[in-house]
Amino acid sequence: MEKIKTKRERVKFASDNVAGACPEVLDAILKANDGDRAPYGDDEISKNLQDKFSEIFEKKVIIFPTSSGTAANALALSTMTPSFGNIYCHKLSHINVDECGAPEFYTGGAKLVNLNGVNGKITAEELNKSISGKGVVHHTQPSSVSITQLCETGEAYELDEIKKISEIAHNHKLNMHMDGARFANALVSLDCSPAEMTWKSGIDVLSFGATKNGCLAAEAIIFFKPELVGNLPFLMKRAGHLLSKMSFVSAQLDAYITNEVWLRNAKHANAMGKKLSQGLNQHKNIELAYPTDANEIFVKIPKDIIDQLNSEGYTINDDEWDGKAVRLVTAWNTNLSDIETFLNFIK
Amino acid sequence: MEKIKTKRERVKFASDNVAGACPEVLDAILKANDGDRAPYGDDEISKNLQDKFSEIFEKKVIIFPTSSGTAANALALSTMTPSFGNIYCHKLSHINVDECGAPEFYTGGAKLVNLNGVNGKITAEELNKSISGKGVVHHTQPSSVSITQLCETGEAYELDEIKKISEIAHNHKLNMHMDGARFANALVSLDCSPAEMTWKSGIDVLSFGATKNGCLAAEAIIFFKPELVGNLPFLMKRAGHLLSKMSFVSAQLDAYITNEVWLRNAKHANAMGKKLSQGLNQHKNIELAYPTDANEIFVKIPKDIIDQLNSEGYTINDDEWDGKAVRLVTAWNTNLSDIETFLNFIK
Amino acid sequence: MEKIKTKRERVKFASDNVAGACPEVLDAILKANDGDRAPYGDDEISKNLQDKFSEIFEKKVIIFPTSSGTAANALALSTMTPSFGNIYCHKLSHINVDECGAPEFYTGGAKLVNLNGVNGKITAEELNKSISGKGVVHHTQPSSVSITQLCETGEAYELDEIKKISEIAHNHKLNMHMDGARFANALVSLDCSPAEMTWKSGIDVLSFGATKNGCLAAEAIIFFKPELVGNLPFLMKRAGHLLSKMSFVSAQLDAYITNEVWLRNAKHANAMGKKLSQGLNQHKNIELAYPTDANEIFVKIPKDIIDQLNSEGYTINDDEWDGKAVRLVTAWNTNLSDIETFLNFIK
Amino acid sequence: MEKIKTKRERVKFASDNVAGACPEVLDAILKANDGDRAPYGDDEISKNLQDKFSEIFEKKVIIFPTSSGTAANALALSTMTPSFGNIYCHKLSHINVDECGAPEFYTGGAKLVNLNGVNGKITAEELNKSISGKGVVHHTQPSSVSITQLCETGEAYELDEIKKISEIAHNHKLNMHMDGARFANALVSLDCSPAEMTWKSGIDVLSFGATKNGCLAAEAIIFFKPELVGNLPFLMKRAGHLLSKMSFVSAQLDAYITNEVWLRNAKHANAMGKKLSQGLNQHKNIELAYPTDANEIFVKIPKDIIDQLNSEGYTINDDEWDGKAVRLVTAWNTNLSDIETFLNFIK
Repeated sequence: MEKIKTKRERVKFASDNVAGACPEVLDAILKANDGDRAPYGDDEISKNLQDKFSEIFEKKVIIFPTSSGTAANALALSTMTPSFGNIYCHKLSHINVDECGAPEFYTGGAKLVNLNGVNGKITAEELNKSISGKGVVHHTQPSSVSITQLCETGEAYELDEIKKISEIAHNHKLNMHMDGARFANALVSLDCSPAEMTWKSGIDVLSFGATKNGCLAAEAIIFFKPELVGNLPFLMKRAGHLLSKMSFVSAQLDAYITNEVWLRNAKHANAMGKKLSQGLNQHKNIELAYPTDANEIFVKIPKDIIDQLNSEGYTINDDEWDGKAVRLVTAWNTNLSDIETFLNFIK
Repeated sequence: MEKIKTKRERVKFASDNVAGACPEVLDAILKANDGDRAPYGDDEISKNLQDKFSEIFEKKVIIFPTSSGTAANALALSTMTPSFGNIYCHKLSHINVDECGAPEFYTGGAKLVNLNGVNGKITAEELNKSISGKGVVHHTQPSSVSITQLCETGEAYELDEIKKISEIAHNHKLNMHMDGARFANALVSLDCSPAEMTWKSGIDVLSFGATKNGCLAAEAIIFFKPELVGNLPFLMKRAGHLLSKMSFVSAQLDAYITNEVWLRNAKHANAMGKKLSQGLNQHKNIELAYPTDANEIFVKIPKDIIDQLNSEGYTINDDEWDGKAVRLVTAWNTNLSDIETFLNFIK
Repeated sequence: MEKIKTKRERVKFASDNVAGACPEVLDAILKANDGDRAPYGDDEISKNLQDKFSEIFEKKVIIFPTSSGTAANALALSTMTPSFGNIYCHKLSHINVDECGAPEFYTGGAKLVNLNGVNGKITAEELNKSISGKGVVHHTQPSSVSITQLCETGEAYELDEIKKISEIAHNHKLNMHMDGARFANALVSLDCSPAEMTWKSGIDVLSFGATKNGCLAAEAIIFFKPELVGNLPFLMKRAGHLLSKMSFVSAQLDAYITNEVWLRNAKHANAMGKKLSQGLNQHKNIELAYPTDANEIFVKIPKDIIDQLNSEGYTINDDEWDGKAVRLVTAWNTNLSDIETFLNFIK
Repeated sequence: MEKIKTKRERVKFASDNVAGACPEVLDAILKANDGDRAPYGDDEISKNLQDKFSEIFEKKVIIFPTSSGTAANALALSTMTPSFGNIYCHKLSHINVDECGAPEFYTGGAKLVNLNGVNGKITAEELNKSISGKGVVHHTQPSSVSITQLCETGEAYELDEIKKISEIAHNHKLNMHMDGARFANALVSLDCSPAEMTWKSGIDVLSFGATKNGCLAAEAIIFFKPELVGNLPFLMKRAGHLLSKMSFVSAQLDAYITNEVWLRNAKHANAMGKKLSQGLNQHKNIELAYPTDANEIFVKIPKDIIDQLNSEGYTINDDEWDGKAVRLVTAWNTNLSDIETFLNFIK
């Protein structure tokens, strides 16, 4: 049996953020390095992104490149939520449990109202029942809703699920945010257009993830309603997220959405996810905890198998093991042999 | 006379942040992209930085890579200054006028107490007179001092100037921060060691700039006193500045301080700065506003010459023209021909 | 049948904050007005409070008078919880639902982790299971626990319940806060000493309520551990809660705890509460939702009876009517005739 | 010579906040205590204030009673200034040096831009030159101007001074705030109407001081432009400044502006101020530092006389003695004999 040797391989499947950048993105960085460029996003690459993203989304959008997803989420939410506002989100959502309170920091103290949802998705019904207290001075005020696509259990919200949630949000005059950390993986899974998965389904502001799917450090906040931009440029600068050599972030995004690089990367990651999911599902002691819609696999694996895998060099998180599930993630650079090696260990 | 043709050249001398990355830094990024790596700084490149920087600074330091100088400054200051604290700084300092209130945001509302200084430097005497109100509940509390190296007029604080300021700060139990956006340029100018320019002169925390001098987007917060680190890891994550693929920021820093790349880059930029400064000084209608210690030149140029230069494609900021001076900056990639071309236009 | 005539009586039973100040408290204000006094709590009345409260609590305490309970809670919590901290509390707690996000504002964005509890009380078991993520940079950090005495359903935490919760909190190195908005009512109900209900049961910081039980506007933050005071004086001033004529707040507190005024007031209110509770419980269509431990009565009243009561001038909140319960509150100034009048309406 | 005997008298002239409440205000509190009242400002006394203040200001105003001047200032400024905004004010202004950073706290980190002014007043000219950077993302954004009436050297801004400053502010689209801690003293000094001193001269929002001039703890935020109210009710609640028994604050304000109580109190304080000022001015070694427009006297007193006065029981602040001036303040309750006693000591 093959032995894991290098430290590098140990993090395989730990997340899609362990993968580096795809060749097209690296090339774009090298090309952008051919001379001086105006700083702070005043360069041509950055400026052209507005049109390129507008074309992709079939609508005039306003985009702000950032270098981290947490920044994109928290900045986006801060344009939609006052300091005394409520952000409705799934209790397991990244913004609620994995950003060390970034939305609270950027909004100046907003409250993340936790919804139980079904699996990792919130439902329109629960959302509707949870919104209350509007206009009453004693209560924090309903302000925005955030959903994660892929959701926290690796499933993709269907278009009509997004639409129903957005409808409830808009009925109550709340704004809709989508944390699209795995936007491309969800898009490919649903086989729909970027427009359909966002503004046509009621999304107002999107955190467009690219880092996990082939960039080095590139995300974007995308506004489908220009009136929501508000003071974002100042808030972004003030947070230290307006990079001086912004052209290199923009160059990544440019390459990412050109020639379907992003879709190709996501298709591959999803295909690998399906392979891994199917392979695991055939094991008699292993059970899928949630459907594998894309590149995240949630499985119930007996403790002894986890221990064995980790002894082979993997880093399957014991802490996340709560008797429910562990998460494995495939990426744009996952090879079939990576999967075969892994599956061989648990046979 | 040669004509400026491309948009790219127009930003020459506007700042050293218009230059891209130097070859060694780009190579390091490519090399770091050779497989999966643990995220959030748990990779080997990031971990090894601790020792490498400790060696450079001849002391066990604790460093946190970041991707923007504003983030480095504001995060550093937030470990040294409570929400009700005073940060003493030059009235023209970057933290005071060019970061859209980042220190205020990160500290939760601290006050930047402006010192007039002499040229762009604060003085120990004025600092000493300005510190007051300690322990009185009505007053914001003296907490930290920040100096910029190179200072806001392009001059380098001499070692004994730093020492005197630090002594006053420490006498009052304030912490000393250095905004080292152009750390290498100052170091080369003073011809001293990194240790001498920092902790040996009383600096407690350093924003170590690398972006302007050859990186893409890489800075570091360096603590010379471990007890000052406080809650920085949480504050950094919460601000969206803990990048998932942090290894690529670390790789830049690694390459930057290896084989004296940073010193070589800075020496070149400074030499070019001297050339440009001397060339300008020979013009009968142009006068240096401040001494050129390194790669920033502050000159009084008549309005008609500025207009002419800008008509040739430069972007010399009219707004900064206040009858006092405009700033020109050379970089690691400035060529002699860039300078000659520029000087030719004003002959 | 007697008819409600004046607007004033309409708010009877709406809360105990509709009652004015008791005579002893008013007298103390008049007495304190006999000449000039040092401002900002430097007066003798304020200074003497430290000893008087220390005597009452059988321990050297440090107290800070404030003029609102929300301020007392939020300021207290801000000394125990960093901006990236978790405050564990009941989902119905006042700090979570009735202070418009004050704890978030004062802490700079902490997260209130909602516990379901049993009725209005949190349990040690659920608390223990909820505390996680300590030291992991991605997660907001467990920092403090807050319980409300009387709790949100009008019941008093028993001493051993408080002890168990405190033990869990302290095991995890969290600090224990008690929101004692109805501290005296709970104390009288449990028939124990102030010391027993607080520090002897593990409470570290107390919001000592006095306004509802006979003051005009007087509460106090009481520290049982001096090391937790931290920067409170600065935070309080900075929030506009250090009143210049603080002696008048202190005078209220002084009178309140002198000659058992506070206990007498609470005993009366509780006795009236019991009367009202018993009277309502005899009605065949009315059912107590929770036990009446003190002066808050939670009852299920049919909608038509509520409508009738409101048509008679009461202000029983329809919004709070969720098929579960409405709240009625007696106060230090409730008369038997007030109760008889009310009960007569629903016969 | 009469000897100072009681601690109480020692604080005479230290400030006007050492005086208690005037009889009319105390009476109003007693009257308001005649039964139950709706909480949180829903009572009749509070509601009626809107009309009463509108009448006094000859314009429909929106008022929010508060219990501290610092709260009034900071809350007012937070409606006019974003977190990345500039507040232009005198370097000696109370909001800048005596509120421990309250404006920074309430705005979420705004910058107080210090103007040197002439004596304690800012000038339109300096203000105009200081406003810059609008729309540039690197700079905090000009947002509001705050002047103090009486100003920090005890002088009253003349109407045309206010008008000129307001004109500059409004030309730049900034909002005008007046910190009227000694509003009545200034009004009486200028002998003009409340409308003239505020909105007719361009003031948009006023902190209406009443505590120093005869209330216990009562101030008001007064909006002359309803569109500026914004989210104030939520921000106020969130800060713990929406008192449950708000009627007692409102009752103070009601009594204060009824039957010219406030004007009578201020006239008396100002008259006493003039007496004290004249008496001091006759001493050969004592010199007025600034004109005495109202009830604040700034005088240069030799150190030995100060020491002697303090040995007699006064509390003239040595810390404020910087070779320039000490401040003495008369109040609504200052007696002629108080002045004579004081003057006798320095003969």
